[in-house]
Amino acid sequence: MNVEITKEFIEILSERIKEQNAKVVKEMLEGLHPADIAELFDELSTKDQAFVIDLLENETSADILLELEEDDRKKILHTFSAKEIANEVINEMDTDDAVDIINELSDRKKVEVIAQIEDKEQAKEIVELLRYDEDTAGGLMGKELIKVNKDWSVITAVKQMRKQAEDLEEVFSIYVVDDDDILLGTLSLKKFLTTSANTKVEDVYNSKIQYVNIDTPDMEVAKVIEKYDLYEVPVIDELKRLVGVITVDDVLDVIREEAEENYQLAAGITQNVDSDDGILKLTKARLPWLMIGMLGGLGAASIMSGFESALEKYTILLMFVPLIQSTAGNVGIQSSAIVVQGLANGSIKGGILKRLGKEFLLGLLNGLGIALVVLLITHFVFGTTYYVSMTICIALVAVIINAAIIGTFIPIFLNGRGVDPAVSTGPFITTSNDIIGVFIYFMIAKAILGF
Amino acid sequence: MNVEITKEFIEILSERIKEQNAKVVKEMLEGLHPADIAELFDELSTKDQAFVIDLLENETSADILLELEEDDRKKILHTFSAKEIANEVINEMDTDDAVDIINELSDRKKVEVIAQIEDKEQAKEIVELLRYDEDTAGGLMGKELIKVNKDWSVITAVKQMRKQAEDLEEVFSIYVVDDDDILLGTLSLKKFLTTSANTKVEDVYNSKIQYVNIDTPDMEVAKVIEKYDLYEVPVIDELKRLVGVITVDDVLDVIREEAEENYQLAAGITQNVDSDDGILKLTKARLPWLMIGMLGGLGAASIMSGFESALEKYTILLMFVPLIQSTAGNVGIQSSAIVVQGLANGSIKGGILKRLGKEFLLGLLNGLGIALVVLLITHFVFGTTYYVSMTICIALVAVIINAAIIGTFIPIFLNGRGVDPAVSTGPFITTSNDIIGVFIYFMIAKAILGF
Repeated sequence: MNVEITKEFIEILSERIKEQNAKVVKEMLEGLHPADIAELFDELSTKDQAFVIDLLENETSADILLELEEDDRKKILHTFSAKEIANEVINEMDTDDAVDIINELSDRKKVEVIAQIEDKEQAKEIVELLRYDEDTAGGLMGKELIKVNKDWSVITAVKQMRKQAEDLEEVFSIYVVDDDDILLGTLSLKKFLTTSANTKVEDVYNSKIQYVNIDTPDMEVAKVIEKYDLYEVPVIDELKRLVGVITVDDVLDVIREEAEENYQLAAGITQNVDSDDGILKLTKARLPWLMIGMLGGLGAASIMSGFESALEKYTILLMFVPLIQSTAGNVGIQSSAIVVQGLANGSIKGGILKRLGKEFLLGLLNGLGIALVVLLITHFVFGTTYYVSMTICIALVAVIINAAIIGTFIPIFLNGRGVDPAVSTGPFITTSNDIIGVFIYFMIAKAILGF
Repeated sequence: MNVEITKEFIEILSERIKEQNAKVVKEMLEGLHPADIAELFDELSTKDQAFVIDLLENETSADILLELEEDDRKKILHTFSAKEIANEVINEMDTDDAVDIINELSDRKKVEVIAQIEDKEQAKEIVELLRYDEDTAGGLMGKELIKVNKDWSVITAVKQMRKQAEDLEEVFSIYVVDDDDILLGTLSLKKFLTTSANTKVEDVYNSKIQYVNIDTPDMEVAKVIEKYDLYEVPVIDELKRLVGVITVDDVLDVIREEAEENYQLAAGITQNVDSDDGILKLTKARLPWLMIGMLGGLGAASIMSGFESALEKYTILLMFVPLIQSTAGNVGIQSSAIVVQGLANGSIKGGILKRLGKEFLLGLLNGLGIALVVLLITHFVFGTTYYVSMTICIALVAVIINAAIIGTFIPIFLNGRGVDPAVSTGPFITTSNDIIGVFIYFMIAKAILGF
């Protein structure tokens, strides 16, 4: 069962691979799951990885390749000819995975590989799947499924299923179609276990099923699978014909990727990067937001310099700029995170005005709480005058309310315009809060202190 | 198939429910999936919700209750007696869901409900499951599974499976055990479709399977299911006996919750809240971090006031504090987000020193890029002296490197100590960067400008 992968095991294995000791390496990898072998690849050079892939059976190699990071996979496949990719890799994969791999190849190699696929049925299916947008149901689905005709008896269905099952790794659902291939429903395996052989499929299938259309966006597919607790969902085309099936494991990736993307955007990272990516790629993903933040900082400086003469008298005000800004920044991030998340999991309902009203109240409540503490600390610890303390506190309440409303409004506004609301979070909201916050602060100071 | 739920439909339905028109409401809800009915509940009062739950068949009602938010479910169940909960709700559920519901009840009601469960076998299983920690495999698993003895023939296995399948909603895997109930492997449904009736189970089952232990943490379970692309994973106890099974839909919730929690923590929200939660609950989740941020702002003010006499000469330095701080804050969030995410999805490997070295380089690169732009802008636009511009730029590079290293080190350090690294992100890292950043800035100013 589960093989214990110790540090020692990895060390010995790496040694043997470097020695290109085919026999021992093969033996050592014998009992391992492809996903575990893929993990070991992190410790190996591309050359050694290619050696292992070459060494193992095609089916295992294909599974390993699927588990690797895209960059690593590309490097290995680069060492393979189109014919090898077609016969040793693509041939062993489900169509949806095969399409993902082919999509990663250069345009020229793509054509070559497809031309080399021996199973003409599979080639046809792959060409069909390549037509669909990666981010839709068509791009996620595989062609591997079991379907039976509604007019068959259960015993005929079983025979056909056995035939169809040969190409499949695992069987979860049996789809029922009519003569035109139109999806009617499913025959659960349970029904199949408990029904007598002569019953007609028509009489026992379940017609209340969930499906998605070929052009449904991948996030919608994920929502359907999550909402109805499905293991797989059938995909139909414009004529309601059954054209493929999407399994929950494909959707797991979609869910995790979306959550990671939102998180990264909120943290000011513009491309999907990994901690193991190169310094140049990481810089490219991080520098743009830092530049925007920098412009925000310079913008704040420019606002302050506009009040220069007044500030000579009230230098103390400048010391509380960080307080104003960090508070505004934190409130903005909190508000936007809650909204972005609510939009992502579909829990945001009701009018925008009601929501903004609520954020106003929330900001007022939080603002008053913080302002009270700040009032006491500035006056008694920093020894600021009553007017200066009041300026700081009123400004705090104002910027908190402002940040809460901006943080709520922008994501909802963008979402309504069809823009991913996640792009608005993080540095973007923080930066605009920085500038507006400083401006509000000094305007209030001007009003109270009269400079 | 999919019923179109229009705004009009919802309005008419709400009307009929308010009129307590049982017959029409029942008809209208007939073709709907419980998950869809649960969504409609957002528009109804608790009284109306209870009316619908009462009206529908127990099985549908139980499914609806499972789909509701915890708060709504509690309110409805509050209107039910222990006997009703046991017979009309718990009785219809899989054991894992039943346990989740029972865990939400008050201690007194918990005991009453369990006493009322008529199916003594189910009651026994629920009591067993209640013993396990909610965040472990034991807390996630259900007892519903199909198991066959290795010594049976396939035909005997089929007969037994049919019997066991009656209690199950759906069949995905058939588990093979020995006389002591020790898990040996699985019999795939495909094998079962393609093997002759007299073959012994022992000869055809697959022994290379993944499993988890009863005390495996839920996040680990999710990782196993994701890594090996499983639909369900069996759970074994200390004696390696098969005690339950965890399905992928339970794990979907764990994955989404973890991603949301990390995101919320990074955004400075300390409790799992929803945009629809009350103002008090939202304040409780948001105020603590704002207070920490406030202390950071006051801390920065206190550091600056330590340089007061020097600042009278160089007031201009204060104007660039927001620039220093927001840059440091953004870098810190970026670095920590990448590390936290890498720790969550298991892609962080290799020594900490190497990683810190990389962040140092990355910080240096980003820092020099930004400093160059700032040098030009401050000198030519703001007209600062050469020395002041140099001060700002050198401080920028220093705080960026510092923020990158802190942002990387703290999550890895916490993770090594068994603390969830996500708590360190967001306001926490921002706040410490705020204070340290200002300190570095003024120390560099002191060295260069010599005040």
